[in-house]
Amino acid sequence: MTPAAKTSAQRPRGETILGVDPGSIVTGWGLVEIEGNHLRHVAHGIVATSTALSQAERLRQIHCGLEMVIKQYRPADMSLEKVFFSRNVQSALKLGQARGMAMLVAAQNQIAVSEYSATEIKVAVVGYVHATKEQIQKMVSALLDLRGSLRGDAADALAAAICHIHRRAYQTRMAGAVSRAAKASWRDYPRVVSKR
Amino acid sequence: MTPAAKTSAQRPRGETILGVDPGSIVTGWGLVEIEGNHLRHVAHGIVATSTALSQAERLRQIHCGLEMVIKQYRPADMSLEKVFFSRNVQSALKLGQARGMAMLVAAQNQIAVSEYSATEIKVAVVGYVHATKEQIQKMVSALLDLRGSLRGDAADALAAAICHIHRRAYQTRMAGAVSRAAKASWRDYPRVVSKR
Repeated sequence: MTPAAKTSAQRPRGETILGVDPGSIVTGWGLVEIEGNHLRHVAHGIVATSTALSQAERLRQIHCGLEMVIKQYRPADMSLEKVFFSRNVQSALKLGQARGMAMLVAAQNQIAVSEYSATEIKVAVVGYVHATKEQIQKMVSALLDLRGSLRGDAADALAAAICHIHRRAYQTRMAGAVSRAAKASWRDYPRVVSKR
Repeated sequence: MTPAAKTSAQRPRGETILGVDPGSIVTGWGLVEIEGNHLRHVAHGIVATSTALSQAERLRQIHCGLEMVIKQYRPADMSLEKVFFSRNVQSALKLGQARGMAMLVAAQNQIAVSEYSATEIKVAVVGYVHATKEQIQKMVSALLDLRGSLRGDAADALAAAICHIHRRAYQTRMAGAVSRAAKASWRDYPRVVSKR
């Protein structure tokens, strides 16, 4: 069974996006499915590592945990939050090590990785640049119709997945509009030149 | 064949230590064998990643390259340089991702990872805290009897391996001294109490 997972009763039908919130102690993950204009929660959970183990062994646990999630749910894409700030070099280094595990598992399973800034994720989920962690948690629960408490790590992972789905939908709409504009001739536009 | 490797003619006979100098573009690696009090160069090389590829794909290349080195040479331990400073958060994050690959490969192959500060490595190899990169390169070449030019990344990896061998030898000597001291009775010490 996938590590510490909460799964929705229905099996995934559309394309599934895996969001990951990497951390050296707890890595959150969440799967969201897109069907037409509908978001559906598939599963979410955490990979918790034991602080009694060596750093290398903990990285192996993260790699194994995410590998199990991918093998079980076969997501189409992976979405991660971009990191710009960190408390110090040691924190950035440890976060990099955990992020590396997520990226490696994606590459090993031919899954494309997209990265979004915290601002992009907040705007996609809450519609507000200065949204708090609690607002993200509540909005993710509301959008995916989740009941009960939702851990911060898993909420961030689900939020990254939702952001990727929004971005893709926007890009598809834009591509459609550009293609329609390219096909249209100037003759399709109403003539507004007045004759004197 | 292992990526970009220079191998010594003789096959390894004693215990082999793998030093790794991780980097997101070039990861250096070097294998040093210890036979009694003798250091012997086994092989060294680099895993170079293509900057045209995605970060995830480049991490997969580092993982694959180090996996090949470990499968071919079966080292007993891995040695890495500890990182305390970085130019900025992005550099620390990318370095962490590459370091994560080295640590993961070690954990997946049941190889213990030891980390040493740059100062410890400099003292072990050159005997001087403020040794320059060039001095390390020259000293590594001299200690391992290497001819021709030695890349900085591979020299750093070999230096980390040499540092680990020195540290282990020191610990073995210390453990021996402590064990001998514990076995000795106070009767073994010369009596210096004078009788009046």
